[in-house]
Amino acid sequence: MSHPGATASDRHKVVIIGSGFGALNAAKALRHTDVDIKLIARTTHHLFQPLLYQVATGIISEGEIAPPTRLILRKQRNAQVLLGDVTHVDLEHKMVDSVLLGHTYRTPYDTLILAAGAGQSYFGNDHFAEFAPGMKTIDDALELRGRILGAFEQAERSSDPERRRKLLTFVVVGAGPTGVEMAGQIQELADQTLKGSFRHIDPTEAHVILLDAAPAVLPPMGEKLGLKAKERLEKMGVEIQLNAMVTDVDRNGITVKEKDGSTRRIEAATKVWSAGVQASPLGRDLAHQSDTEVDRAGRVVVNPDLSIPGHPNVFVVGDMAFVPGVPGMAQGAIQGGKYVAKIVHNEQKAREHGTIPKPREPFSYFDKGSMATVSKYNAVAQIPIGKGKLEFGGFIAWLAWLGLHLIYLVGFKTKIATLLSWAVTFFGRQRGQMTITEQQAYARTRLEQLEEIAASLEDEKQAS
Amino acid sequence: MSHPGATASDRHKVVIIGSGFGALNAAKALRHTDVDIKLIARTTHHLFQPLLYQVATGIISEGEIAPPTRLILRKQRNAQVLLGDVTHVDLEHKMVDSVLLGHTYRTPYDTLILAAGAGQSYFGNDHFAEFAPGMKTIDDALELRGRILGAFEQAERSSDPERRRKLLTFVVVGAGPTGVEMAGQIQELADQTLKGSFRHIDPTEAHVILLDAAPAVLPPMGEKLGLKAKERLEKMGVEIQLNAMVTDVDRNGITVKEKDGSTRRIEAATKVWSAGVQASPLGRDLAHQSDTEVDRAGRVVVNPDLSIPGHPNVFVVGDMAFVPGVPGMAQGAIQGGKYVAKIVHNEQKAREHGTIPKPREPFSYFDKGSMATVSKYNAVAQIPIGKGKLEFGGFIAWLAWLGLHLIYLVGFKTKIATLLSWAVTFFGRQRGQMTITEQQAYARTRLEQLEEIAASLEDEKQAS
Repeated sequence: MSHPGATASDRHKVVIIGSGFGALNAAKALRHTDVDIKLIARTTHHLFQPLLYQVATGIISEGEIAPPTRLILRKQRNAQVLLGDVTHVDLEHKMVDSVLLGHTYRTPYDTLILAAGAGQSYFGNDHFAEFAPGMKTIDDALELRGRILGAFEQAERSSDPERRRKLLTFVVVGAGPTGVEMAGQIQELADQTLKGSFRHIDPTEAHVILLDAAPAVLPPMGEKLGLKAKERLEKMGVEIQLNAMVTDVDRNGITVKEKDGSTRRIEAATKVWSAGVQASPLGRDLAHQSDTEVDRAGRVVVNPDLSIPGHPNVFVVGDMAFVPGVPGMAQGAIQGGKYVAKIVHNEQKAREHGTIPKPREPFSYFDKGSMATVSKYNAVAQIPIGKGKLEFGGFIAWLAWLGLHLIYLVGFKTKIATLLSWAVTFFGRQRGQMTITEQQAYARTRLEQLEEIAASLEDEKQAS
Repeated sequence: MSHPGATASDRHKVVIIGSGFGALNAAKALRHTDVDIKLIARTTHHLFQPLLYQVATGIISEGEIAPPTRLILRKQRNAQVLLGDVTHVDLEHKMVDSVLLGHTYRTPYDTLILAAGAGQSYFGNDHFAEFAPGMKTIDDALELRGRILGAFEQAERSSDPERRRKLLTFVVVGAGPTGVEMAGQIQELADQTLKGSFRHIDPTEAHVILLDAAPAVLPPMGEKLGLKAKERLEKMGVEIQLNAMVTDVDRNGITVKEKDGSTRRIEAATKVWSAGVQASPLGRDLAHQSDTEVDRAGRVVVNPDLSIPGHPNVFVVGDMAFVPGVPGMAQGAIQGGKYVAKIVHNEQKAREHGTIPKPREPFSYFDKGSMATVSKYNAVAQIPIGKGKLEFGGFIAWLAWLGLHLIYLVGFKTKIATLLSWAVTFFGRQRGQMTITEQQAYARTRLEQLEEIAASLEDEKQAS
């Protein structure tokens, strides 16, 4: 595959930032291209984010949805995977700066593909994060698993009815797909898996609240499917509160502002935040150095070919990019990554043959539809047909969800393991991944840890 | 099963401390006894410790070896599982004090079974723990998984040959079963699973050192099997250093004292400590209040019926107890737990019938043998036959190990899932549980975190 006489140093350098759907698909689509690929990411794994909620609620293990990126790309000899947190892109010198454990690195590029995704957005209230973790990373999912299961443990030991109620109240903020899935799964966890395993409390009395500032559940899926999902959740026992805006989150609960301006308080030990996304800060970093613009969510407004203004060799794909009509879902990133890889491939071929590359065609998104599971045996799905949309819910949609997600999981063993995990949870009521670490069982907020450490440092100071 | 007219409050109260083999087997053996059981443990799960090294090296998920104790005991209506760190046993008032997240609890008992196990011992050098985690808990295993895989990641980015060598050197201190298994698995991880997935380093150049102050590998298994294990490990590439005493451990390596008194230094980023055990401090707590004695490892010297002097209603089983001839292995704890449960059962029956219970027969340990895996397809095993011992190694021993461990794993789904995990690792070379969290990927020692936090607090103080 290697270009005769080309060495690593004089080959065209493609740097990809990220290890999600966009980054991985761009890298894989370049496997037959004579370029030198460096994929720099903050995690060692490729995360299959759509199933993250199943890690958080004890159905599957983190290994099933987060295999190491370097093992996926093991056989692709033109790609190197590097762990590091990218802190800055230097457009002028064509360099990417990254940090790993106090060591800083500068990596040169000829072509840059930014696919660093998005984090949770707290709409300017970052202090909420402490009390209401997001649902974006494996760390988030394991942290939430610890908090959810830990709340039941604390309730079992509490003799104060008010405290017990607070511990058994779970608030999920944001009624998009992740919020709907989390709310449904916390309810099923309590009603089915945990049922009968406590002596002092009844876990089926857990109170799950799904809350959104918008007037509907699953707004992007339309009124009909949103209503279907809402009815199903309510039938399961989830309380749905719409038109409710969160104005404060603290250790003991949240404060909500109604549409009429009045505020009320929900006492709840466990809060999950799935309300908004904020693109990687690298988007703003580009905007500072070029004519590139970002939208309010920090997404980069890209050219029709997903490059940025004035830099045809710098592309942005996936959740970091704003492209009208492309939703922030796996398919958007996958298709964006493959599209950019094709441009890079064509232009590399042209360089090799000394010809002029074909002009770039604009990126066009092919809508394959979308779906969300509500509970076991129940999902909602929409598939575009011609100019209309096929919308359906219930068992058939759930089967479609099951099959599609199995197909997309990486690796044969993972597919079998996940099928096994689903079998015990969906056909039975068990969950095989309910382990929480001691660190999680005794989880204190970072603030509490800081206070404790500060106190111990103070003690040490006085002692010496 | 309930005694007519008996309510929870007037039933005989059995408190069990711990959730390991001893505690769980005592609780389960009391399922048909009309007593009120409270099992108080520091973790929510029952840990199958013999396979912990497979979690640390990415073969199986934590869920497979650490199911929630309350789900195992779900159907046993006379048992309640409580999360909490037991801090004190009050022998005079028959109370157990425990703590959970700042809340303290006092639990009364009529009969107490202490089965809180043992932690890692650093022989008075607890500051080693920071740099050389033990192998006793799920937290330890996940922490080590992060450090081991993280070291390869850092090495891939390093251009300094000396630093790279340090990052690719792994020292396992303690050549008992856990040390042998860890050393073998780190070597196989590097040589088989990671091989070919890096571009800058060659993971097969990883240098694994197994080190012990004793003159032999696997001393309790005898000279012949120890030699077999040693030869096999050396053939795999593990360097074995015997008669080598660790005198210091820091971030960058360890210092070793030879038998002749000279010292030398091994530069190694990753250290694993499996050199000694220290029984739960609750043993010493008992000794302070009674005529009970503890040995140097903190184990309680118990009466022949596993009770403590002067307190026939207080029993100690498993790794917390010193019983001549009983090794600190799962079987010792399992048999101890069942034995004590039988005493409690008999005496409860006598109370119910107003009769005098049979005198307690002393505990006798039935040696079922022991085994340790060295590598895939290779283990050593010994089984007592008459007054002698059947000793064997190699593939047959490995098959026996495989079968026995599968049988002892809790739950049908877990057995299937683990068999699947083993199939891909042992017949292939993949590992399905290689995920590390961001927290682990960017792991810094607690000391470094403290220094950082102290600096930021200082900054805040100056700013305000």
